[in-house]
Amino acid sequence: MLNDFIFHNPTKIYFGRTALSHLKEALAEFGPRVLLVYGKGAIKRIGLYSAVMKELAAAGKQVTELAGVSPNPRYSEVLSGAALVRENEIDLILAVGGGSVIDCAKAISVSAYCEGDAWQKYWVDFRPLENRVVAVASILTMAGTASEMNSGSVITNEAAGIKEGRVFPPEVCPRFSILNPEYTYTVPKYQMASGIFDILSHLMEQYFSGEDDNTSDYLLEGLMESLIRSARVALREPTDYEARSNIMWCATMALNYITGVSKTQDWEVHGIEHQLGAYTDCAHGAGLAAISIPYYRHIYKDGLHRFIRFATRIFGVCPEGKTGEEIALEGIDRLRDFVSELSLPLSIRALGATEKMLPRIAETVELGGGYRFLSREEILKILQDAYRAE
Amino acid sequence: MLNDFIFHNPTKIYFGRTALSHLKEALAEFGPRVLLVYGKGAIKRIGLYSAVMKELAAAGKQVTELAGVSPNPRYSEVLSGAALVRENEIDLILAVGGGSVIDCAKAISVSAYCEGDAWQKYWVDFRPLENRVVAVASILTMAGTASEMNSGSVITNEAAGIKEGRVFPPEVCPRFSILNPEYTYTVPKYQMASGIFDILSHLMEQYFSGEDDNTSDYLLEGLMESLIRSARVALREPTDYEARSNIMWCATMALNYITGVSKTQDWEVHGIEHQLGAYTDCAHGAGLAAISIPYYRHIYKDGLHRFIRFATRIFGVCPEGKTGEEIALEGIDRLRDFVSELSLPLSIRALGATEKMLPRIAETVELGGGYRFLSREEILKILQDAYRAE
Repeated sequence: MLNDFIFHNPTKIYFGRTALSHLKEALAEFGPRVLLVYGKGAIKRIGLYSAVMKELAAAGKQVTELAGVSPNPRYSEVLSGAALVRENEIDLILAVGGGSVIDCAKAISVSAYCEGDAWQKYWVDFRPLENRVVAVASILTMAGTASEMNSGSVITNEAAGIKEGRVFPPEVCPRFSILNPEYTYTVPKYQMASGIFDILSHLMEQYFSGEDDNTSDYLLEGLMESLIRSARVALREPTDYEARSNIMWCATMALNYITGVSKTQDWEVHGIEHQLGAYTDCAHGAGLAAISIPYYRHIYKDGLHRFIRFATRIFGVCPEGKTGEEIALEGIDRLRDFVSELSLPLSIRALGATEKMLPRIAETVELGGGYRFLSREEILKILQDAYRAE
Repeated sequence: MLNDFIFHNPTKIYFGRTALSHLKEALAEFGPRVLLVYGKGAIKRIGLYSAVMKELAAAGKQVTELAGVSPNPRYSEVLSGAALVRENEIDLILAVGGGSVIDCAKAISVSAYCEGDAWQKYWVDFRPLENRVVAVASILTMAGTASEMNSGSVITNEAAGIKEGRVFPPEVCPRFSILNPEYTYTVPKYQMASGIFDILSHLMEQYFSGEDDNTSDYLLEGLMESLIRSARVALREPTDYEARSNIMWCATMALNYITGVSKTQDWEVHGIEHQLGAYTDCAHGAGLAAISIPYYRHIYKDGLHRFIRFATRIFGVCPEGKTGEEIALEGIDRLRDFVSELSLPLSIRALGATEKMLPRIAETVELGGGYRFLSREEILKILQDAYRAE
């Protein structure tokens, strides 16, 4: 059954090899003052920085820059950007990069005109958005987070030692996003693999909840199948446009809210990984992969019907002569094999976790779950299993 | 491979049993003068008219009414609505009904402030939209056209004897749409079945094009599977909320442009049906069903790979020991069986077509096709096959 839902996603997507040619027309809707936000310089190496600057100049924009945004964007960086927005009366914040850069741009947008401390208000107290926001747009260089078509923003407050995500109202979604799969060709293989598992995890975290099989479940399956198929091609041939274009669009579709409508959703794997990441600074997708296997092995009996369906439909497990539990477990084995195909480690040991860390990580995880709420003891057991895995 | 595309759909969806409770908040964004557009009175029989009027009053709106919109909305009705918009300086056109009523509301929106004849400009000459439009919103009572979340408008010019569809820019999309599946419970079975095939046809018209299997194809398959599964339940039990809610959302997703991105698409079945409908006034979905079977039998060799995939994935045809052509044809046989499950006729004879009409219908069909362009002789052959079918 479809539970009641509200869906609204106003982001305009320009997709493909020619996407950047639309930048000038897309910019026409906004005032002249642009804050360009980007990371550590990858966009300069692939020539994107100069291409974008050329279009901005052609569109008659005055550009202020915020460079050097961290892979896990920090609140101090957000505050620097917010000050630039106010000082320069910025009309549009244009993020050029991956999910971190776009998340940072959204955080700047909501923080620039916030009365009081934005971190406390929006990422700690989760207060409703009450101040005006500055328009955000993006040019994407990595497939993974879907930040290019959603209103989420994950920020790390380095002073408080907390990484926290917040979903804002649709007005914080990028007004437009430019997605050219070719920009992802030069992403290192480990980062690409990590991004792919992040996408898959977004899909599974929505999929593994609910009793009946509704339209969203069918759409999630379609995206999982398409992603896995294209991932296998991209691993062999990183510049295969067919594979890269499908991976990029799967990433956007995996978390632009359309496939999650009516689903209660899980997100406990992400919850555990966030804390693992806080201790180890491991790549997000790699952490998700190592946690997913013991997590799903721990909970599959609570959503057996869905795990059987996952096994047969996503990984082609043959159900004949097997019990439901055997089918479900075989599906999780295939998922583990896919992690290995991606050359991601199966153990969080390989990601820098130590045995001593585990109780402390378990202690700070927010409790939740798609099929039932887990106890803190269960979280610890999953972490221990993830630690011992080979 | 994903071809380059632009996607933008700003419609806000309120879905479910409680959706109408959001009407007042949704109305707050618009000025006080509302034009309420509806059909022949079904909304009064199910109590929706009075519920909506109550919310409009609570929101302090001044309501003007355009009642009696035809199932195939006419340009004369559009002009009446456009005059009401101008006379009353309408701020929002609120359509309450099925696709026809919403299509009519959009046509009123683009016509009210059009200089010169809107029909000629937008539905004949296909000129770019150049005048201001009035905001449109909808409350949906039938699953089928997806007009609640797209910018299309099919209008019949009764003077010219032409039915023509036009896709407008995203600003013509409903600003919000309220989708409560319970409103569809009282739709007569034949109309429900026709709507279901219309939805399936929208999906197939997008699916049967292109060589490779991209993300859109996987999503289209997911929607086809979900739709067929829920259709079978709704046929037995018209007030099954699970089935009705999935059918309604499949309908919206089938033509809100998201599953069509990058696809060249076909739409020749719709092209033939439009002309069939002009001669017979048959229910749209019923016409589509009777044409689809001979059409796909005629063209399947040109897209054999996709028809094999359709057979195995959508209708579970077992491929073992069969040639590709045999598998593809078995898939089309299963599609024909599904038409029979819906109690829709397989022959256009049963829809009022005569042998004499066929050459005249074939003569006026716009030529096109998903895998190759058909000749006029081929269209006639398909019509003759559809006429002779049992």
